[in-house]
Amino acid sequence: MLDYAPDLDRVYQALADPGRRLMVERLSRGPASVSELGRPLEMSLAAVLQHVQVLEACGLIRSSKLGRTRTCSINPVALRVAESWIADRRTMVERRLDRLGEYLAKTADPPQPGKAVSATREKK
Amino acid sequence: MLDYAPDLDRVYQALADPGRRLMVERLSRGPASVSELGRPLEMSLAAVLQHVQVLEACGLIRSSKLGRTRTCSINPVALRVAESWIADRRTMVERRLDRLGEYLAKTADPPQPGKAVSATREKK
Repeated sequence: MLDYAPDLDRVYQALADPGRRLMVERLSRGPASVSELGRPLEMSLAAVLQHVQVLEACGLIRSSKLGRTRTCSINPVALRVAESWIADRRTMVERRLDRLGEYLAKTADPPQPGKAVSATREKK
Repeated sequence: MLDYAPDLDRVYQALADPGRRLMVERLSRGPASVSELGRPLEMSLAAVLQHVQVLEACGLIRSSKLGRTRTCSINPVALRVAESWIADRRTMVERRLDRLGEYLAKTADPPQPGKAVSATREKK
């Protein structure tokens, strides 16, 4: 019964950190080297590399090394999977609330002109 | 520069657990009591309550107590916020890849009938 999809666990875990979200944000605009990714973050290159590894392990980014430079790029598929899980639940909730609204609108007493709320109550 | 929005940190952290995702899944179909939420999970009521508190603290669910029963319901607003952050990045990536595709299609040499790849190379 439990949705143990390891990717979702790790993708949401990765996105729960503001530094990693900033990296994803940067990579959404195009590939970047690890040192470029670290520039706006006040942390050591080792710490940046650790975040990069978390993002790569869950599939949100890919990286390749050429000489001494590791270049990272985003993987839109992982973004889509993480988005879909939430979107499916949000759609389910909104449809249910819409149906509830329609039901309440149908079953509500139609407003009777000239009659106050107290009069409606007396009728019951 | 860092996106320190505490809600996003906590919402993604909450969604990184399969048990909590199962609770969100259940609540998407309608309100439920804490014991109902715990039924498919093999854990103590105390552990279930702890997960409920994590979900409530980040705004994904709301709960209210009537007598001895605590009833939980989903908050679609928090789902929408979590979905939007990912959707905005995914859209950005896809637009960039589309533009790149168009650029490559425009700048590519049109295929020349009767000429092999080696012939194209000789031309340069």
